[in-house]
Amino acid sequence: MNKEILIDVGSQLAHLRMYPVFDVCHYLLTALLVRDDIQQHQPATQNFTRRHPLSCWLSTMLLSFAGSILSNFLLGESPIKDFAHHQHLLLATICWYLVFYSPFDIITRLLRFVPIRIIVGVAKEIQRTKKVFDGVHSTLAIYPDGYLIVVLIGAIKGCGGSIISSIDRFIRGVWLPTQTEFLFPSFATKACFISAIVFLLEYLQLIQFERELVYLCVASMFIYVRIITIFFKQYDPLMPFENLSSGILFNSWSETISDAYRRATASSTIPGAINASTQPQATVIPAALTPLTATTTMISSKKETNNNDGQVKSLDVKKRD
Amino acid sequence: MNKEILIDVGSQLAHLRMYPVFDVCHYLLTALLVRDDIQQHQPATQNFTRRHPLSCWLSTMLLSFAGSILSNFLLGESPIKDFAHHQHLLLATICWYLVFYSPFDIITRLLRFVPIRIIVGVAKEIQRTKKVFDGVHSTLAIYPDGYLIVVLIGAIKGCGGSIISSIDRFIRGVWLPTQTEFLFPSFATKACFISAIVFLLEYLQLIQFERELVYLCVASMFIYVRIITIFFKQYDPLMPFENLSSGILFNSWSETISDAYRRATASSTIPGAINASTQPQATVIPAALTPLTATTTMISSKKETNNNDGQVKSLDVKKRD
Amino acid sequence: MNKEILIDVGSQLAHLRMYPVFDVCHYLLTALLVRDDIQQHQPATQNFTRRHPLSCWLSTMLLSFAGSILSNFLLGESPIKDFAHHQHLLLATICWYLVFYSPFDIITRLLRFVPIRIIVGVAKEIQRTKKVFDGVHSTLAIYPDGYLIVVLIGAIKGCGGSIISSIDRFIRGVWLPTQTEFLFPSFATKACFISAIVFLLEYLQLIQFERELVYLCVASMFIYVRIITIFFKQYDPLMPFENLSSGILFNSWSETISDAYRRATASSTIPGAINASTQPQATVIPAALTPLTATTTMISSKKETNNNDGQVKSLDVKKRD
Repeated sequence: MNKEILIDVGSQLAHLRMYPVFDVCHYLLTALLVRDDIQQHQPATQNFTRRHPLSCWLSTMLLSFAGSILSNFLLGESPIKDFAHHQHLLLATICWYLVFYSPFDIITRLLRFVPIRIIVGVAKEIQRTKKVFDGVHSTLAIYPDGYLIVVLIGAIKGCGGSIISSIDRFIRGVWLPTQTEFLFPSFATKACFISAIVFLLEYLQLIQFERELVYLCVASMFIYVRIITIFFKQYDPLMPFENLSSGILFNSWSETISDAYRRATASSTIPGAINASTQPQATVIPAALTPLTATTTMISSKKETNNNDGQVKSLDVKKRD
Repeated sequence: MNKEILIDVGSQLAHLRMYPVFDVCHYLLTALLVRDDIQQHQPATQNFTRRHPLSCWLSTMLLSFAGSILSNFLLGESPIKDFAHHQHLLLATICWYLVFYSPFDIITRLLRFVPIRIIVGVAKEIQRTKKVFDGVHSTLAIYPDGYLIVVLIGAIKGCGGSIISSIDRFIRGVWLPTQTEFLFPSFATKACFISAIVFLLEYLQLIQFERELVYLCVASMFIYVRIITIFFKQYDPLMPFENLSSGILFNSWSETISDAYRRATASSTIPGAINASTQPQATVIPAALTPLTATTTMISSKKETNNNDGQVKSLDVKKRD
Repeated sequence: MNKEILIDVGSQLAHLRMYPVFDVCHYLLTALLVRDDIQQHQPATQNFTRRHPLSCWLSTMLLSFAGSILSNFLLGESPIKDFAHHQHLLLATICWYLVFYSPFDIITRLLRFVPIRIIVGVAKEIQRTKKVFDGVHSTLAIYPDGYLIVVLIGAIKGCGGSIISSIDRFIRGVWLPTQTEFLFPSFATKACFISAIVFLLEYLQLIQFERELVYLCVASMFIYVRIITIFFKQYDPLMPFENLSSGILFNSWSETISDAYRRATASSTIPGAINASTQPQATVIPAALTPLTATTTMISSKKETNNNDGQVKSLDVKKRD
């Protein structure tokens, strides 16, 4: 039967051992991410990776174990608790070394080769699903009724890296306060929160499907988006929903009405409120709906911030575009 | 009898239930504070509140629960422990929504209407007193002899928001390292520390008054300053004391003597020390005594920092003044 | 016998009581460090120490107790736990006051007088050795197999101040993201990590010497470098080893080979990799090998960063050199 096969696949997926293979994929992609970030934000510092190996290593480790560090911290435990066993850190260190310093850059080149990129990416998403699932269920054991904490910890296990990215950049001497994850949440972050909610609802039996099916669905969603984003840069399936909800919730409509009202009663008595309303009213679009303008702002602010480091050459901007 | 009435009032004040009404006032004022801060520091980002609802919400929640988050962290517990119960967060979210997105900005306009501002402000100060009092006594249960920790936790319960404000701004993409609470402590912060000390002294029976009277005095002081600051912008009743103590402690007098001595013995052998002393000696005034110059510095540094975001228009400065 | 005398000296060193005398030396030098840092980074703010005593005090305390605060935090305990006893904080406050505000700057002048500087410096290094040793052994009691955590906590007990220095500067309104300890680790930091490893190896009986001898060796090493750095500014005995290891590990050689290879096959297909390789290949030198260029970068970035504060005068650069 078709459904039974799916349940079987889901069950096998949920019981895969993460330790050597899937973790390696996660570490490799994280190291690659750090390397790309260095190339993007510190192009003027020649041979940054060779001059500051400590900074690169610390940065990669922080990002690789961000989920564990952050969730331990938020649960009031030792943030470095999971380093009591060395094999994970050792594995991550080897991956970091291979990505950053392999002869002829062979590992990095392989990781940028599309078929390998897809395989490694899929493995990483499987590991991410597992981490979110485990995060939700281990937190439920501590706070059986603290649904908010459960969702938060579950999501952070999956997307800790993007939340901690500001601290991570700071370790490498880059400081971009205008580009935090809180201002421009990535799809991965949003998807982790949704998955954590889905796993929680399934636990509370508000979703009447088999656990394995739910698990398979969430994993497929992650994998699907990962593959799509390899081919198309900006892809966010949540956009239409955000569009709708922010149109309803963050009242573009009442804005329009109140605008008309304000224009009618132009001489209001409250200066603060006027201040906000008399600015030329561009159509109100939430950030996620305008990837292009958002990106433009980010690039220009990047340029500005790098200027402060006194390390930018006028050629970099072209290169980056 | 007069004293008995006061004790009765103090007792009733100390046993008021905070949960729905007083907490709402706190949440509303915090959300308004965040909104004003956005208008002040990010005027160039049009419709910031509508484009970045996540950032606004997170920022408001962090500020609303700063006391609880910070004190839990400092006591080595889970910073998000208090979110295990949802009603507080739900209430704060509703308040945030009303202040930021209510139709016609009606809630914000009401909160800026002076009589309502006074009532809500008074309620917030009553809640603050309660939080400091509870903070002191709950910490005394853990560290009966750790007076410093007791005062610190007590004060932070009351003024966590102002201490955490840098992180809060960072979430909204604003970074102003030259304007931390540590450089320019607000009166609320100082008053919270003094109140925590007073409550501790009362507990140690070094203040020989009834607990209810002490409570009433502290609450009245908070309320009094809150009402005064609604009408006059810069009001700090601690100024003369700071003036006196910093004159005595941070030796303006020995400075004057040593100045004379240095001028007499102009060719000193220690270059570092000379460096500090040969600068033209403006009269030494601690920060709190010069609100005007301090504010000027802050405004100019604001200008500078905003410039970095690449989002400033030359008109903003006028608007802000 | 010669060896027995050494063991006796080491044993006496290991059982010295730190509390009043050695701790005072540590507090005095830390306060002096903060004062020098203020003079270096905030020369434009006249009388910073007198205008912002709170900020100076907090900054000094944070740096004085950085080891204890950071290691408590990383072990998941209350970061302020050690302030439950007041005598340490009281002592540190007195030292801070004497260094910052003593009449005629007498304490600071004395501390800059070379013989006193040597004595106080030696005492501080003895205290540092003791802290690393105690840190390693107290962490071994919690994580008997978590060698990484043991080394980390041990090292942080000794060099917490330099790791936390960014936060410390932030409290004083200075923000220098391009100068973190992670980018330019000081010798003290590296030496603390090495000492922690040595103590751990001795505990695991992989170093077959008496514990007292090992302790004496580590202490002598710290003292030796401290005395050398008083006379010569830039001294790092680890340089040649770093030179060697980074030459081998962070593959300058494969770089050279791959360079030749790339030049031969100029039209590669992977644009990202090319991007990194076509930059003019300066000889690859790790940071520690080029103190001069590193310092130059730091100074210029300092200039840049200060500019942002809107407080810099064009004369400062000269003064600082």
